[in-house]
Amino acid sequence: MSFEKLAKNASEIISEEELKQKLKLNRPLRVKAGFDPTAPDLHLGHMVLLRKLRQFQEEGHEVILIVGDFTALIGDPTGRSSVRPALTHSEIEQNAKTYQEQAFKVLIREKTKVVFNSEWLKALGTEGTIKLLAKWTLARMLERDDFSMRFKNQNPIFLHELFYPLLQGYDSVFIQSDLELGGTDQKFNLLVGRELQKEQGQEPQVCMMMPLLVGLDGQRKMSKSYGNYIRITEKPREMFGKIMSIPDTLMEEYFRLLTDIEEKEFQSLIKEHPMKAKKLLAFEITKALNSESEAQDALEYFQSVFSERKFPKDAEIINVNPGRYRLIDLLALINSGMSKNALWRLITGGGIKINGEKLIDPNLEVDVKISLEIQLGKRGFYIIKPQS
Amino acid sequence: MSFEKLAKNASEIISEEELKQKLKLNRPLRVKAGFDPTAPDLHLGHMVLLRKLRQFQEEGHEVILIVGDFTALIGDPTGRSSVRPALTHSEIEQNAKTYQEQAFKVLIREKTKVVFNSEWLKALGTEGTIKLLAKWTLARMLERDDFSMRFKNQNPIFLHELFYPLLQGYDSVFIQSDLELGGTDQKFNLLVGRELQKEQGQEPQVCMMMPLLVGLDGQRKMSKSYGNYIRITEKPREMFGKIMSIPDTLMEEYFRLLTDIEEKEFQSLIKEHPMKAKKLLAFEITKALNSESEAQDALEYFQSVFSERKFPKDAEIINVNPGRYRLIDLLALINSGMSKNALWRLITGGGIKINGEKLIDPNLEVDVKISLEIQLGKRGFYIIKPQS
Repeated sequence: MSFEKLAKNASEIISEEELKQKLKLNRPLRVKAGFDPTAPDLHLGHMVLLRKLRQFQEEGHEVILIVGDFTALIGDPTGRSSVRPALTHSEIEQNAKTYQEQAFKVLIREKTKVVFNSEWLKALGTEGTIKLLAKWTLARMLERDDFSMRFKNQNPIFLHELFYPLLQGYDSVFIQSDLELGGTDQKFNLLVGRELQKEQGQEPQVCMMMPLLVGLDGQRKMSKSYGNYIRITEKPREMFGKIMSIPDTLMEEYFRLLTDIEEKEFQSLIKEHPMKAKKLLAFEITKALNSESEAQDALEYFQSVFSERKFPKDAEIINVNPGRYRLIDLLALINSGMSKNALWRLITGGGIKINGEKLIDPNLEVDVKISLEIQLGKRGFYIIKPQS
Repeated sequence: MSFEKLAKNASEIISEEELKQKLKLNRPLRVKAGFDPTAPDLHLGHMVLLRKLRQFQEEGHEVILIVGDFTALIGDPTGRSSVRPALTHSEIEQNAKTYQEQAFKVLIREKTKVVFNSEWLKALGTEGTIKLLAKWTLARMLERDDFSMRFKNQNPIFLHELFYPLLQGYDSVFIQSDLELGGTDQKFNLLVGRELQKEQGQEPQVCMMMPLLVGLDGQRKMSKSYGNYIRITEKPREMFGKIMSIPDTLMEEYFRLLTDIEEKEFQSLIKEHPMKAKKLLAFEITKALNSESEAQDALEYFQSVFSERKFPKDAEIINVNPGRYRLIDLLALINSGMSKNALWRLITGGGIKINGEKLIDPNLEVDVKISLEIQLGKRGFYIIKPQS
């Protein structure tokens, strides 16, 4: 029973048999997951992993989150890129805190241990580092897909990059993990940890690879760098709306990986009432990451604005001086976060309505004498109010 | 003038122009040479380098010998080979001492500084190590001939092996060397030091590569592992005899790299009196590594024994009980360092003479009543003396 629950949805487990044996040990397993403290902005892709970790916690196991602060402290030492500057200790601690705040929207705080790998990696020293390097051959390291691709394409691989998988694997040795969880793209790294443990005479960790969640574009994996993501910390109404915008083809996988709804139930719902299914999906995810009442509010908001096309009663009010404005200038007074260029494109692209009427000329003169209902794009609602 | 002397016989200098500039600085240059403290048995191949270092000393420069104790302390960490066990500190110190005793047969003691690279390499730590790794790409490291060959042939390369050239290069950065000397097979490693210095904003070291001395077989470079070498610490008579045994084709190069005799002089001597030339070569090298009187003794010994085929008067005397012996058993009483098997092969191969007569049956009975002159191989002379 426990095995069925824990193995569910995994893309691959190395090995299932070992996991079964470990679950019979009658002690809490040490479940490892690593994270990079340079980018603490978690999204639904991370939620897939966090939910799996949560399931282990519910079965009585211990989750160990490893903050990879060591490499972050070094930064990208190639000196060829300013993209990854070294972080300071306090920045890393702040990032780790931010990360935890997000992760604990899914994880059980008391059953989660957070550790920083600089603790043991610093202690390796020159000697320990060389001994660790000596545990792996170049040929084996080049089996990693991205390395072999870069090598084949003659893109530079710096020697320290070949070392990082070993450092991550050494984390497993140090914390004596029973299982490590990661995305399918992490398989190679997870296996390095397993091998290093074997060499040290430890029981090797089980490697559990979870599917990568496809992003809003329906094409690529959800990732900050592709801009196709939904933050875990998204405001409930925003979150709900964004989930409603995913292609229908993703619904099944999102139900499977992000909710507790049974396969049979969501399958038939998607088939018979796709709109209802998507609202249920959005409701369930929003609820899990916030609260039931917030999810309820988001649902109602969505229905009133989008399904019934009503202007929301609680739109933000912007006070302006009465008078005549160019449309573009008026919109710039709204603190929407959009640049004037972006607003210009939005207007000419037909994304602006005033009192329900689409306006496409940025230079149009608007007379502000009474309150106006402004819609910016799909989900920006504001009331411009003249006030002298 | 100084440049001509110092550049003489080098296979390659990177670059000659830089060396000229450095010689104009009017300060002693820091001349680096590294050595591996696992094998302190120096031979004439090393003498080529030591002589060049000596020339720098004679011109007022400082020689810095780097004892590579750091990697020796680690040993071969692959754990796949018992060939290179880690050495202890006291073994390394002993080896370094033995090395110096040998090196000072050529170098000027007061102008030589000996340093151990563990001093600065230990201090690198995990962080410094990673930063050093980040300075080099895999592709550049695979330009080294032996790496590229092994990679091509799918022989394993362990990751720490890719790191060692960087450690050696870092030595140059740390000691701020002006010039590094090595064999032509060390070119890649020497250039790594040069590049790392550039990156640190130092004036890069000049790399001077010396030719590799061909060994006694006339084929391969002189090396302990090929057994084709003459030790720097060889006894004078042995040394003289061994030099006399080199193929005539090597004479020129030996004169050039191991003596101060002028090119014109040895060229014509080799042409006109090859035997005389070889004796001069043997005399000069034996003298340089010992003393003039020892070289003179060795010359006379060689002439009496080999040129005039006389039995040497001062052969070692072996006292035995009078009586009848099998030839093989009699020879085994001589403390020649040869096993019974080796003696058997020597006898049957015609390498044994008693009183000038070749005996080829190991089972022959020999009656020891009076003293016998025994010749073992080419250079083993003993007198068997019956004594009751």
